[in-house]
Order: sequence, then structure tokens, then C-alpha cells
Amino acid sequence: MEEINNIEVVPCTESDYLKPFRVHYNQNGTKKSWDFMRTHDSVSVLIFNTTSHCFVLVKQFRPAVYMCEWEKTKMQPPQSADKTEEGASEAAAAESQEGQSASEGESSSQWPPASAGVTYELCAGLVDKPDLSLEEIARQEVLEECGYDVPASKLKRITSYRSGVGVTGAKQTMFYAEVSDDNCVSAGGGEPREGELIEVVKVPLHEAMTFAYDERIPKTMGVIFSFIWFHNNMSPKYKISTNV
Amino acid sequence: MEEINNIEVVPCTESDYLKPFRVHYNQNGTKKSWDFMRTHDSVSVLIFNTTSHCFVLVKQFRPAVYMCEWEKTKMQPPQSADKTEEGASEAAAAESQEGQSASEGESSSQWPPASAGVTYELCAGLVDKPDLSLEEIARQEVLEECGYDVPASKLKRITSYRSGVGVTGAKQTMFYAEVSDDNCVSAGGGEPREGELIEVVKVPLHEAMTFAYDERIPKTMGVIFSFIWFHNNMSPKYKISTNV
Repeated sequence: MEEINNIEVVPCTESDYLKPFRVHYNQNGTKKSWDFMRTHDSVSVLIFNTTSHCFVLVKQFRPAVYMCEWEKTKMQPPQSADKTEEGASEAAAAESQEGQSASEGESSSQWPPASAGVTYELCAGLVDKPDLSLEEIARQEVLEECGYDVPASKLKRITSYRSGVGVTGAKQTMFYAEVSDDNCVSAGGGEPREGELIEVVKVPLHEAMTFAYDERIPKTMGVIFSFIWFHNNMSPKYKISTNV
Repeated sequence: MEEINNIEVVPCTESDYLKPFRVHYNQNGTKKSWDFMRTHDSVSVLIFNTTSHCFVLVKQFRPAVYMCEWEKTKMQPPQSADKTEEGASEAAAAESQEGQSASEGESSSQWPPASAGVTYELCAGLVDKPDLSLEEIARQEVLEECGYDVPASKLKRITSYRSGVGVTGAKQTMFYAEVSDDNCVSAGGGEPREGELIEVVKVPLHEAMTFAYDERIPKTMGVIFSFIWFHNNMSPKYKISTNV
């Protein structure tokens, strides 16, 4: 799907997006400190198209995921292909600070294919507009990313939880939106001005549980959880055939 | 549960834990760049005690979650208590760079209670030992954090997925472990040498689904998803009463 090349990794001394802080504190009388990052809360939306009986997901190239896979490739001795699952070491992280680049010619041996960085996700967005409700922000993401125009009042709150509790601790709120082909006003795909290259994909209802548990399909936990939530809560309304 | 005081926030110019990198690349011919962080993959374990028919979770003070809540408090005008859910702005993040500190006397007005940073989570750990299997790492976490000694062969893989796709993109693998009181060899609580202050908590099976969807109980999506996975997959074996 994607063509990725001319990759170069450099240390990041000043970032508009990643701002590490350190908090010093006393916990039950013991002095401690912790490094963390501020990030915005977020919303995600499970979208179900009632015309085609499909879930509507987004699929995109995620540089952070790609770099994870790249480091595993580096860690992997050519002779033992079964070690890739074991994670990357601090040494590998430090090594990447030196800056690596790959020409197109090199990439087939040094860099994994672009597909290694592509993930399936729920439509989602940051809560970065203080004057808008969570529902309104979710509504805008459904429109921008997936092309469906639905009123905020039709978004059903599923639940909320904490993400990245070690680093960001932000709150994510998950919604459910039923849409129909009549609500489809554009192809979606995100805001090109913001550099978003998002592919809208449909997962038929009858394939959803197989999709959810197929580990060969890279995805977020939000996709898996929300599909199962739908299975448990919407199945009286929309028949779902599954043995999971 | 926790007493937190003498809080001070400072910018973090050099961290052993948070190392931002920048990757430059071409995507379908367009030059792009992305800031990301390297982190280890991780494992998490849903633990079910077959003696007491309880799930075994860990509960701990998470500085990153606490700081999230603190920023919301700062954003919140005293007269409008219903705006706390709306997230914190970049301005607030920048402001915290100036460094804030609170004495015990001040904390009641300026700092939220420690409970604002406490979350319920699955037993979990980083994949930072390249010579160990995921199952073996999970086994060690179950022992260290929760005090149950179970063989790695008894860990059942539930699934895997990507977390923090915007920033880290690490892979998380979730396991299920059945334990009994006979496997309990210590009180758990984590490694005090590593500064872990972990409380082991039990959630009775018959309360699990209510717990999962109660948004007043701060928790990770892993807790919610795994409880529902158990409900769907283990209910023939262990009767679970729920209407969710």
C-alpha cells in the first residue's frame, strides 16, 4: 500500500510533540521521581455501517510502529528467525541515535517493508479543542477521517480508561456510532494539511471476530475490545456469527 | 491509600527512560518526519484465582496519570466544575515547565488527592530480557507483583496488539493465568529495589463486569478487555453472572 524510503533517524533534542518532564515527589515518606510526558486526552469511535453491515476502521502507516519493527530486524541474527518476538534492547535504542539512513537500493535488506508499520485502528483524535465536547470532537473525527456526517447526539459513549499509564496517563473515551451509506459525504482520509494519509477500510460484521483475534493483522487493543463489545451488546440487534 | 506530597515538576532534558527520536522519510514520494520514542514491548497477564473465584489485579500510584489530573485541575475555572473532562491544553503543558512545588499545607488546594493518580491494571512488565521467552517474563511478573508461582507453561496467550501507535508503537502480548491459593508464595507487591509500590487487589468474579464498565474506577483498557474476554471464553467453565 505505502512506499516508504529515504529513512533517516536522528536524535530529537527539541520536539513540539514529545515534551518530557520530571516530577519529584514523596510517596508515603519516600523521595521518588518519575519521567513522564504530557499529551492530550483522546477519543475513539467504533463505527458500524448499517447499510453494508461493516465496521469502518482506519489504516495508516505509523512511523513509531515501523521503527519498532526495524529495531527487531537489527536485533535478529540472520540465522535465528524465531527471535523477532523478543523485543529490542536498550543497546539498539542507543545505536539508533547515531542516525541511520537507507537509500531505496539498500532498503530491501536493511529496512523492513512499509507494511511492517501499517496498523488498523479505530477512528480517533486528540482532545485539543477545550471549547468542544468529547462527542463533538468525536463527530469531527468521524467526518474528517471516515467521511460520515453524523450528529454528535448519535454518538453513544462506551466507556473510558487510561492509556500509557507509565508515560502519559492520558484518558481515552470510546464511542459507538451507527452510520449508513446516506451519511457518507466524502471519502474521508484525514486532513492532508496535517499530513494525514489515512485509508478507510471496512470489516464485514461476519468476519469481525476472526479479524479481532488474528495476530497477523496489526491493530490496536481498541479495535479488539470494541468488536467484542459490539458482539456482546449489539448482537440482539445485528446478528453476528462467531464462535469466539 | 497513598500519601503524596512535596511535588515538584521540572523540565526533563536528559532521561534514561524517555528518549525521543526523529525519523525523516519519504511516504509515496512526500517528505515527512515524525517524532517517536523507543520503548520495550510488554506483556500483561489476566490472573484468575480458582480458589476464591477472584481476578487478581495490581493497583498503583502512577505519576503520569496524576500529572494529567493536576493539569485538568489547573485548567478548571473554579466556577465551572463540569469542564474537567475536556482535557488540558498545550499552554498548561508549557506552564508546568516553570516548575511547581507544593508543601503539604498547599496541596489540598493546588494538588489533587493522591487517589487521582491511582489506577487498576493487569499484572504487567517490560520485555527487556532478550534471552527469556514472553511466557517466562510474564511468569516472573506474576511472581514478583502478585506473589503467585506458576509455571510458564500454564500461561495461555490471549492475543497481541500495538499500543501507543503515535509515540511508541510497542507490541503488547496478553496472557491468561489460572492460579490457586496453593500457588501463593508471597504477598507480591513488586520489587522495592526498583521503587515499585504495588498493591495486589482482588475483584470477585461476580463483580467483574460491573467493575469493568464503572468509569469511576480508573483502569487500563487491558482490564476491561480481559474481563470481557474471560466472560466470553471462560464462562462455560466458571459461571459468571452479568447482564452486560
